[in-house]
Amino acid sequence: MPLVRISVLQNKSDAYREAVADSVNEAVIDTLDFPPNDRYQLVQGIASRDFELQEREGDRAVLELTMRAGQAQEDKEAFYARAAELLKQDPGIPSENLMIVITENGEEDWSFRDGIAQFIASR
Amino acid sequence: MPLVRISVLQNKSDAYREAVADSVNEAVIDTLDFPPNDRYQLVQGIASRDFELQEREGDRAVLELTMRAGQAQEDKEAFYARAAELLKQDPGIPSENLMIVITENGEEDWSFRDGIAQFIASR
Amino acid sequence: MPLVRISVLQNKSDAYREAVADSVNEAVIDTLDFPPNDRYQLVQGIASRDFELQEREGDRAVLELTMRAGQAQEDKEAFYARAAELLKQDPGIPSENLMIVITENGEEDWSFRDGIAQFIASR
Repeated sequence: MPLVRISVLQNKSDAYREAVADSVNEAVIDTLDFPPNDRYQLVQGIASRDFELQEREGDRAVLELTMRAGQAQEDKEAFYARAAELLKQDPGIPSENLMIVITENGEEDWSFRDGIAQFIASR
Repeated sequence: MPLVRISVLQNKSDAYREAVADSVNEAVIDTLDFPPNDRYQLVQGIASRDFELQEREGDRAVLELTMRAGQAQEDKEAFYARAAELLKQDPGIPSENLMIVITENGEEDWSFRDGIAQFIASR
Repeated sequence: MPLVRISVLQNKSDAYREAVADSVNEAVIDTLDFPPNDRYQLVQGIASRDFELQEREGDRAVLELTMRAGQAQEDKEAFYARAAELLKQDPGIPSENLMIVITENGEEDWSFRDGIAQFIASR
């Protein structure tokens, strides 16, 4: 269910970008207790000179997740570890070059489709 | 007043993108009680393969709104419905392919111009 | 420490974009009490027609900062003023065309690297 903005370096192959998106989605499903088909991702390429992480070099990624408040701290920590592990495996992004930031909001702040606020619509 | 990030598919015409931005702005004004000239929008094109909404096909849009806390739940629901309605009319985005996410912040978190925090500057 | 998304007009020179990023980083360090090497920035170019700030013309920038809750209101105000001052000096962005929005989150919402939540990992 989270909306995930994924920033990677520009001019990567489609296969690379798909591997990143797949690994992130797998980490979400493994650790954050969302249904498998709840995949909402926007992938964006950014030039190296426009993508600054403390002067780190080489492959890098920033994940910005927006999700409904309520995830346990331990689950967030599990997500960070799992995302780092999977992205290192495929497509090979070094864990030291992975940054993750979560922003939370409320139940009434989501419309997944159809102009309806699904979390509160059944009330 | 909200800052709205609008993501649509890449390689759409200027007219398409303008129609999206206009429809979103009209929905904001109709439902969220902001002044008509408070339009702050960033439109971004994203390739279909980088733009994942549960494997939905065809035209799609994600709206990410950041706004000051305090909007009523009913007004947010009205916004979702109105945005879906207007975007379906023009430029014809199916409502099932529209996702909207709101993130709230505080009065002190806004500087609209001039390096001043307008909401609190008069205190 | 904040993650800063910087939006400027498309087709600007590398030197222009670097000047924007440097000025923003200097303002962060001057006013928000972060270590000098805590630079996390994503710079994005957006076409003029896709970059709407109340019909303002010419050079413009939007800064979206995500940071851990706890910064004093006075420090945020100092940041807005300093960022406007520095961006006006270099690369010459008029202060009336600078918008800044801050979103806050929690300590457990950050992984700067290595799949670890650095703010809470020592507990």
